[in-house]
Amino acid sequence: MFPISLAPSVRSLPRTRSLCSHLNRSYSTKPGRVIFSGIQPTGIVHLGNYLGAISNWVELQNNAKPEDQILFSIVGWHALTLPQNPKVLRTARRDTLAALLAFGIDPKKTVLFHQEDNQCHTELAWILSCITPLGTLRRMTTWKSRLADSRNANSEDDINEGMLNAGLFTYPVLQAADILAYRATHVPVGEDQTQHLELSRDLAKSFNKTFNGKKRFFPVPEQMITPFKRVLSLKDPTSKMSKSSPDPTSRILLTDTYPMIQQKLRGAVTDSNSHISFDPINLRGTANLLSILSACTGETIPNIVARYTGKEKAHGILKMEVADSLEEIWRQPRQDFERLRGETEFLDAVAKEGARKAKDMTQQTMKEVRTLVGLC
Amino acid sequence: MFPISLAPSVRSLPRTRSLCSHLNRSYSTKPGRVIFSGIQPTGIVHLGNYLGAISNWVELQNNAKPEDQILFSIVGWHALTLPQNPKVLRTARRDTLAALLAFGIDPKKTVLFHQEDNQCHTELAWILSCITPLGTLRRMTTWKSRLADSRNANSEDDINEGMLNAGLFTYPVLQAADILAYRATHVPVGEDQTQHLELSRDLAKSFNKTFNGKKRFFPVPEQMITPFKRVLSLKDPTSKMSKSSPDPTSRILLTDTYPMIQQKLRGAVTDSNSHISFDPINLRGTANLLSILSACTGETIPNIVARYTGKEKAHGILKMEVADSLEEIWRQPRQDFERLRGETEFLDAVAKEGARKAKDMTQQTMKEVRTLVGLC
Repeated sequence: MFPISLAPSVRSLPRTRSLCSHLNRSYSTKPGRVIFSGIQPTGIVHLGNYLGAISNWVELQNNAKPEDQILFSIVGWHALTLPQNPKVLRTARRDTLAALLAFGIDPKKTVLFHQEDNQCHTELAWILSCITPLGTLRRMTTWKSRLADSRNANSEDDINEGMLNAGLFTYPVLQAADILAYRATHVPVGEDQTQHLELSRDLAKSFNKTFNGKKRFFPVPEQMITPFKRVLSLKDPTSKMSKSSPDPTSRILLTDTYPMIQQKLRGAVTDSNSHISFDPINLRGTANLLSILSACTGETIPNIVARYTGKEKAHGILKMEVADSLEEIWRQPRQDFERLRGETEFLDAVAKEGARKAKDMTQQTMKEVRTLVGLC
Repeated sequence: MFPISLAPSVRSLPRTRSLCSHLNRSYSTKPGRVIFSGIQPTGIVHLGNYLGAISNWVELQNNAKPEDQILFSIVGWHALTLPQNPKVLRTARRDTLAALLAFGIDPKKTVLFHQEDNQCHTELAWILSCITPLGTLRRMTTWKSRLADSRNANSEDDINEGMLNAGLFTYPVLQAADILAYRATHVPVGEDQTQHLELSRDLAKSFNKTFNGKKRFFPVPEQMITPFKRVLSLKDPTSKMSKSSPDPTSRILLTDTYPMIQQKLRGAVTDSNSHISFDPINLRGTANLLSILSACTGETIPNIVARYTGKEKAHGILKMEVADSLEEIWRQPRQDFERLRGETEFLDAVAKEGARKAKDMTQQTMKEVRTLVGLC
């Protein structure tokens, strides 16, 4: 294992661990970056959420300069674009907050808040929607995959626009508002969000041009591509690991015990080749395990593959190595999470303080926005 | 002239006049109606705004029971759906408020406020957008006419969806939020808004069904059709009187002096028939003048037509009778408006107080909405 950095302590939090250091990236470090990203409250955090976003956030936070401002938001309004059980959603919101804290997001360093606690997001979304061409939204492809995901459709071709609600259609505009309300300069998101980030960039430029005489009012935010691309389903490596898959053994949850992690990995679909090779196009199941292992330990994939050359029962051994490495990283956060999710008063206090800071940060911007558009 | 009722005094306002009593309608008077309507800040109020909405609002206010709650909103966020000059919009917001006061809307009886002072509208709009089928919005026809209007297109056929911004496409959802945020039971709007009101009704039912076990949370609001249908352009009686027509003589503004009103009416397009008859299909110009006169004086149209039977130069005389009747009603509001629009501090204080009341009214509802959907 690579050395694991210790995340700063949160009130009553024991030491939490962040992902291994090889996930550090040399992002632009101009003074005064404003970094914003969001995560949907979809329930217990799974490995896809962790490797795809949260581990990267923790690294960004811990390597930020004092002049950087970092905001991570649990975006409940976005969750409403797909049908939700309100009771489940309520718990998921709190669990997501607890998980972020458990993984090492530190409310002293990061503005950690629920999107829906700051109405400026929907206000700005409305204003931006008035300069968003309908044709641009129609060209967004993500709503198709989200719908397909949520309905376990085999393909996006099974999805048609008639199944859409207006929220799912316009949520890239709300996403742009999430970012621009804080005049964010950097947005760490996965490659599947490139199209949305492009819309945010276009809307920043369009607003500046329409209402500010082409002078910069909103910065044009830069995408920081999350290093880890996507974790695939353990049972169907043609699709990504997802909360919405009906098969719970397809994903590893933060709450899974070590034996459960082992069991799920034992049942992971791999390829019929007896030896281990990395081929993310044709041998996706094995490639997925190699990618997870590499992300957990920091060892390069070629090194791992070399270690397995000529080994017998290589897939079985690889699976258990993945289980061990993951357990190593997740043991402490899991304990912290189980404790924190019961501390509802503390969680509510963290959310309240985050909301206060978030609202403070948008107040002046929104005042200026209203003046620029003529509504103040 | 029919007797003119005296509107209650507003601070520093002299007596203002409401429209003649025949516009009173026997609306349902169940206890505790919540009446909501909105007007866009499009500039100086014209005769179409007055007869189509404001006069009716004043009547509703003055005939309301003590248990009724009345809200009239100047809806700036809706104005953004078409291109605006921010400086002009800023003045228009204030002028619209001054005009409403001048015509007799009394902030002691009515919650009079700027929509954009209450963020709950955009928050609820987002939530409602997540239960609004895209197909329903596509079937709305008003965006076509608004676009055609704003671009002076000859026909709605000249307008295609590609010209749309997302705000113009989704504004019926914001309109539903405007209404439902106050749990309004009655909405006085013109017939051209029937389709939108139907959406508000559908969304109320859909929300109740989705989030409240089919029990009533939002009342299903009833439309109160504004008695006066629509005032037509003086120069082109095939289209309605509108702020956006390039010909200023096509509309009569609250700021027009009596000589200007006379001049515009003298130039009004009427029909080649020398006698006066009421035929709103084939003789629209004359029918428009008769409708305006009837609305101003309360005299029935058949009576007016009878009075003109056999008269020579009938159209010229009719035009001057319209001018005189309008001047009679508008003289005092015009004076009040000219004075009030300079009293910016007073206007800001009225707006602030209205915003406070509006926000108070939505606070509890929005708290419950958030709980119902699972975001609280």
